[in-house]
Amino acid sequence: MDDILNQYLTTRQYTNTLCKPLQTEDFTPQSAAFASPPKWHIAHTTWFFEEMILKTYSPNYQIFDNEYSYLFNSYYNTIGKRIERHNRGLITRPNIDIVFKYRDYVDQHMTQLLKTTENETVKSLTVLGVNHEQQHQELLLTDLKYTFSLNPICPKYTDLNFVEDTNTDTGWLDVTEGVYNIGHDTDGFCFDNELGMYKTYIHPFSINKALVTNQEFIEFIEADGYKTANYWLDEGWHWINSNKITQPLYWIKIKNTWHHYTLSGLKPVNPDAILSHISYFEAAAFAFYKGMRLPTEFEWEVASKHLNWGKRWEWTNSAYLPYPNFEIAKGAVGEYNGKFMSNQMVLRGASVATSKNHSRHTYRNFFQSHTQWQFAGIRLAK
Amino acid sequence: MDDILNQYLTTRQYTNTLCKPLQTEDFTPQSAAFASPPKWHIAHTTWFFEEMILKTYSPNYQIFDNEYSYLFNSYYNTIGKRIERHNRGLITRPNIDIVFKYRDYVDQHMTQLLKTTENETVKSLTVLGVNHEQQHQELLLTDLKYTFSLNPICPKYTDLNFVEDTNTDTGWLDVTEGVYNIGHDTDGFCFDNELGMYKTYIHPFSINKALVTNQEFIEFIEADGYKTANYWLDEGWHWINSNKITQPLYWIKIKNTWHHYTLSGLKPVNPDAILSHISYFEAAAFAFYKGMRLPTEFEWEVASKHLNWGKRWEWTNSAYLPYPNFEIAKGAVGEYNGKFMSNQMVLRGASVATSKNHSRHTYRNFFQSHTQWQFAGIRLAK
Amino acid sequence: MDDILNQYLTTRQYTNTLCKPLQTEDFTPQSAAFASPPKWHIAHTTWFFEEMILKTYSPNYQIFDNEYSYLFNSYYNTIGKRIERHNRGLITRPNIDIVFKYRDYVDQHMTQLLKTTENETVKSLTVLGVNHEQQHQELLLTDLKYTFSLNPICPKYTDLNFVEDTNTDTGWLDVTEGVYNIGHDTDGFCFDNELGMYKTYIHPFSINKALVTNQEFIEFIEADGYKTANYWLDEGWHWINSNKITQPLYWIKIKNTWHHYTLSGLKPVNPDAILSHISYFEAAAFAFYKGMRLPTEFEWEVASKHLNWGKRWEWTNSAYLPYPNFEIAKGAVGEYNGKFMSNQMVLRGASVATSKNHSRHTYRNFFQSHTQWQFAGIRLAK
Amino acid sequence: MDDILNQYLTTRQYTNTLCKPLQTEDFTPQSAAFASPPKWHIAHTTWFFEEMILKTYSPNYQIFDNEYSYLFNSYYNTIGKRIERHNRGLITRPNIDIVFKYRDYVDQHMTQLLKTTENETVKSLTVLGVNHEQQHQELLLTDLKYTFSLNPICPKYTDLNFVEDTNTDTGWLDVTEGVYNIGHDTDGFCFDNELGMYKTYIHPFSINKALVTNQEFIEFIEADGYKTANYWLDEGWHWINSNKITQPLYWIKIKNTWHHYTLSGLKPVNPDAILSHISYFEAAAFAFYKGMRLPTEFEWEVASKHLNWGKRWEWTNSAYLPYPNFEIAKGAVGEYNGKFMSNQMVLRGASVATSKNHSRHTYRNFFQSHTQWQFAGIRLAK
Repeated sequence: MDDILNQYLTTRQYTNTLCKPLQTEDFTPQSAAFASPPKWHIAHTTWFFEEMILKTYSPNYQIFDNEYSYLFNSYYNTIGKRIERHNRGLITRPNIDIVFKYRDYVDQHMTQLLKTTENETVKSLTVLGVNHEQQHQELLLTDLKYTFSLNPICPKYTDLNFVEDTNTDTGWLDVTEGVYNIGHDTDGFCFDNELGMYKTYIHPFSINKALVTNQEFIEFIEADGYKTANYWLDEGWHWINSNKITQPLYWIKIKNTWHHYTLSGLKPVNPDAILSHISYFEAAAFAFYKGMRLPTEFEWEVASKHLNWGKRWEWTNSAYLPYPNFEIAKGAVGEYNGKFMSNQMVLRGASVATSKNHSRHTYRNFFQSHTQWQFAGIRLAK
Repeated sequence: MDDILNQYLTTRQYTNTLCKPLQTEDFTPQSAAFASPPKWHIAHTTWFFEEMILKTYSPNYQIFDNEYSYLFNSYYNTIGKRIERHNRGLITRPNIDIVFKYRDYVDQHMTQLLKTTENETVKSLTVLGVNHEQQHQELLLTDLKYTFSLNPICPKYTDLNFVEDTNTDTGWLDVTEGVYNIGHDTDGFCFDNELGMYKTYIHPFSINKALVTNQEFIEFIEADGYKTANYWLDEGWHWINSNKITQPLYWIKIKNTWHHYTLSGLKPVNPDAILSHISYFEAAAFAFYKGMRLPTEFEWEVASKHLNWGKRWEWTNSAYLPYPNFEIAKGAVGEYNGKFMSNQMVLRGASVATSKNHSRHTYRNFFQSHTQWQFAGIRLAK
Repeated sequence: MDDILNQYLTTRQYTNTLCKPLQTEDFTPQSAAFASPPKWHIAHTTWFFEEMILKTYSPNYQIFDNEYSYLFNSYYNTIGKRIERHNRGLITRPNIDIVFKYRDYVDQHMTQLLKTTENETVKSLTVLGVNHEQQHQELLLTDLKYTFSLNPICPKYTDLNFVEDTNTDTGWLDVTEGVYNIGHDTDGFCFDNELGMYKTYIHPFSINKALVTNQEFIEFIEADGYKTANYWLDEGWHWINSNKITQPLYWIKIKNTWHHYTLSGLKPVNPDAILSHISYFEAAAFAFYKGMRLPTEFEWEVASKHLNWGKRWEWTNSAYLPYPNFEIAKGAVGEYNGKFMSNQMVLRGASVATSKNHSRHTYRNFFQSHTQWQFAGIRLAK
Repeated sequence: MDDILNQYLTTRQYTNTLCKPLQTEDFTPQSAAFASPPKWHIAHTTWFFEEMILKTYSPNYQIFDNEYSYLFNSYYNTIGKRIERHNRGLITRPNIDIVFKYRDYVDQHMTQLLKTTENETVKSLTVLGVNHEQQHQELLLTDLKYTFSLNPICPKYTDLNFVEDTNTDTGWLDVTEGVYNIGHDTDGFCFDNELGMYKTYIHPFSINKALVTNQEFIEFIEADGYKTANYWLDEGWHWINSNKITQPLYWIKIKNTWHHYTLSGLKPVNPDAILSHISYFEAAAFAFYKGMRLPTEFEWEVASKHLNWGKRWEWTNSAYLPYPNFEIAKGAVGEYNGKFMSNQMVLRGASVATSKNHSRHTYRNFFQSHTQWQFAGIRLAK
């Protein structure tokens, strides 16, 4: 179990590291239904270990605080009433000091348990909890960025701005026709939605080795991309018009130069850097404007071993739906992924905000088509 | 061209037949953004022939009324400003007599043109217009049903109530694994979204020869199906709760017996008849409750030659997305299908309200997941 | 009773006269929650006589159709369930021919009753019903104007456009300080909200003998009146910005000239004519811009005998609230006025659309502050 | 100037006292558009002194931080862009330590200025600022209560729960008919909306010496008060039904006993204590149910010298409108009150949360009819 304990402690420590630059006030606010407060992320991930593991598998475990099950539960409907999602930012008490004590308390008990048990369920649930916390680490960053961006004084989180990466590869990769295997194929961890490896028939296609840059997207804007109905899906066209979207999230034009809010404050947009913070609607419109298309998630997976990926989540043209052999797990953990297979698009790859050791070429991320607040970009196919 | 002319005249006549039971007042109201008035349907289908064919291919053609392009255009953004979709029910003028004169006028010119031209584009656009009008014939019925259902006196359209059909086949059909061809494969007409025949790998599956009956769905209701979160997609759960959905559209319980509004008035629900007017969310929840699933559209197409289909549109578990070789046509006609490939689910088959000669096993119908007002039902797979 | 019968028949006939220019389709649509269909107005006013008088006071009276109580009731909550107000436009059946038969049927029975009874309650309820129908005659015109205005072809109702009147008087009327009587003071009919004559102390003020003209309001627009926050009540400022209001209702600028939709079609705005179709918010902003104010309803009533009024409803700076001795009548008729004494402003006078013999200097009309669709204008005070 | 300085320092200190029980996290969240964060209140009141006084009248004054004008401005549109009201809870930076430094900084400069100047404008603006801060002291408490109430663990602010007061007087006070003076009539401070003393004619009325108790309101609830349409204004009826209001704000029934959230946590409702946290709609419905009415603000003012008031803000039946001689002040300070004279009702008196020395019998408080979060109650008249 040493390896699992090590994974556990490393991941838990990394969450603390991410919180270092935060001031006490930063832990509380929720800036949108989708953007949870830092305190919620760090308590919810802790609650997961308490609820799923310690309560059942740690003898004589005393729950830290009974009310936390209600306060820091998320969408696990089977475990009881939960606070309205959009009210998470009002939970000023327990304060952050107590929540960190809660983390310590759970860490101590988890450490003790992992050192002594050989129970395979504990092991697999711990790995699930570690991966769950890694997901929330990325959300902590993207949610914080969204919240900070709404403060007119543009607060700085760190010196690292997360959006300066450039492409290392260029040109097109051609993939030949045939039957390919799709889905998770190793002994390592994966989420339930990657399971049930199966075959799919892929027609010949080409995929770009580079992601779309800021400069390319500026050209789209300047070509009236946001004003040309024909480039857009009908829903996308309504979305940009209803919400007055005329550029990627966080972008603002100051004295004729594009700037954007970054985690190190307001900065000029670097034309050579890889585009970020665009929705599926914007990705699809850009592809149409270029006379190309987005890859399917299956094409992406097949091509991935030849691609340099991991800087941006890459919107695919695949809806988030079950694989042929998908099975929903029993009980609360089973609610994990299947219930969201509705009106979401798959993103493949990983981003600069994704935690280390949390990337796989079979990983299926998913968001609604209008979602912009992730570090998401565009890879073209044809 | 005789065959085309015959198709044209038969289809145009059938629209008139559908309007026979209507009173003048029935032609105007719009009961929801999605449910257009009869007058709009009969004018819009006429406008299609005038705009796409007569204006260009009929020498010296005089437009019947310049304002109709604005009044009776639909989503063809490239052709100019259009009236707000939700305001169609306010167009009391031109009145219905004039709109029928408009139909006659266009029919005369189309007849003359089809008798004299050998132009292949005219031919193919006419066939497209015929199929377009057949789509609107079905919508005319479903929209009228929705409007009438909101009148407390439950008006009767015809003696035929459209929802009494029962299953003729039962049991499971097993389909073997392999690579299958998908998409339109004959010389006959099809829409652009069926084109580009391609290969797909199908894993072994079973599909039911019967559609779900009212009795089976009543059992779901009585088993607290609408109150059990675990059966539902997360979006579906929110949808039924926000909209207080507790039964299929048009159903109402009177003195402990389920009744439903039908096109022949308020009737008791026949337990043996095939279920209708349910959304994708309800179809998916029912399948989950039965421990099964919905077929994909590809599975459906492969199995279809062995199924007795055509009574209900059948929700599939496939999102409406382009086939690998999908190409968007140029110009206004090109707006036809591709722009709606976003957050909609595919339905396969046809319904009792579908016009004759408008069915194909490769036909891809599509609606949003919460849509209930079509004659749509459930076929289970496993 | 001859006088009452005469009033009854004259009023009923005038409703029919107003309907003469309508085509069958015009009777059905509802263009906003506040703008009821013509059919509803003519059925609802008929239902009032049936429900309030014939059912109780006409021996052996047979109700024309039981369902009409539900279909054509308005806000009389005590009389049972009613159709949702915004769905009135979906009632295609009963059709207009039957509704006119309903009117004839009720007219015959009312005529017979009025010829034979000496019952004072019948008399007073008939007078109430006549005044109620006169109110709906004005609404029929204003609602029809609103509906027609949303049809891009700008249908014409009559040759009379209703908005060409000019001022006959000018200058200021000075009123001296003192205690004045307010409220209804004759034997004639009035609504409950005018009753309970009482005293009020009026401070010295001046009121203009003329109403504001289109030209004066155009000057306000050109002085950036709609863009200057300081002129507006806070709610008014939010209202014009949320709804993008930049001119009076029905106005549109065509080639640098203001036009407006009128009941005789689209016309240029006559600068000398009296302004119409503005909200209280716009009236208050205009007064502020002029460095003046609107009169209170009490000032208006005191000054009215010296004013030439009746062309436009005149917004006052008084909220619609009960007089000191206001009493709510018992039963359904009692719901008439008191329950609306909340967040509405009083208008005094009458308009070009008000029926003859329906005006009094004590009449209290009332609408919400953002209401624009009435023939309402501005009289300044200081 | 010593008296002014003393008022200033006492008031500023009292704000700090109110903040003592708060933890750092409590200062940030905003739980509704109407309920601002504590940090915003304490910064905004500080900004008022800096913006209105120090910038103009303190020689060589250095602004503490230029961005605060944007961050902590409220509705003073003339002073420049401001942050969206509903986003105040996202301002985590500047943190609370810096905001208290800002307070200290301004206090030092204000102290110095008040010690040295004889400028009458400085004096009057300081008194205005003191009264402004006192208003925000009450809001700080009511807003905090609203925010805390949405935390399922019901945090405690202090041992004092603010809602235990009982009536000391009972019976009816009769007031005789006549002309009375209304409005501010001393040399002391008042807001602009109280100015311009004028005469009004009051008809004879009786007003209760006691406020309505919790027990009396429980009787209303148990008499189906919230389910009886006739008791309610039409808007009120829609409001309770749309928002599912079935009891006063903060009330919850636990095991058949009414409890309510108070600033000292969840407590049983004391039947003898004075009712609080009801809207005008609820006050008006209760009065109707009792066969009585609410007093007008003029009746209240005339009767006030014989009443024991100050425990609850008392809803009157008067709309918030200008007095006959009301004048809007010039510039930013002039935006103070007049622009809100639209769709609000007047409350008279004061509450347990009102700061000392902030009460006057001519004081006109005002809120929208549905507002519940103030310590507002009911005094009946007839």
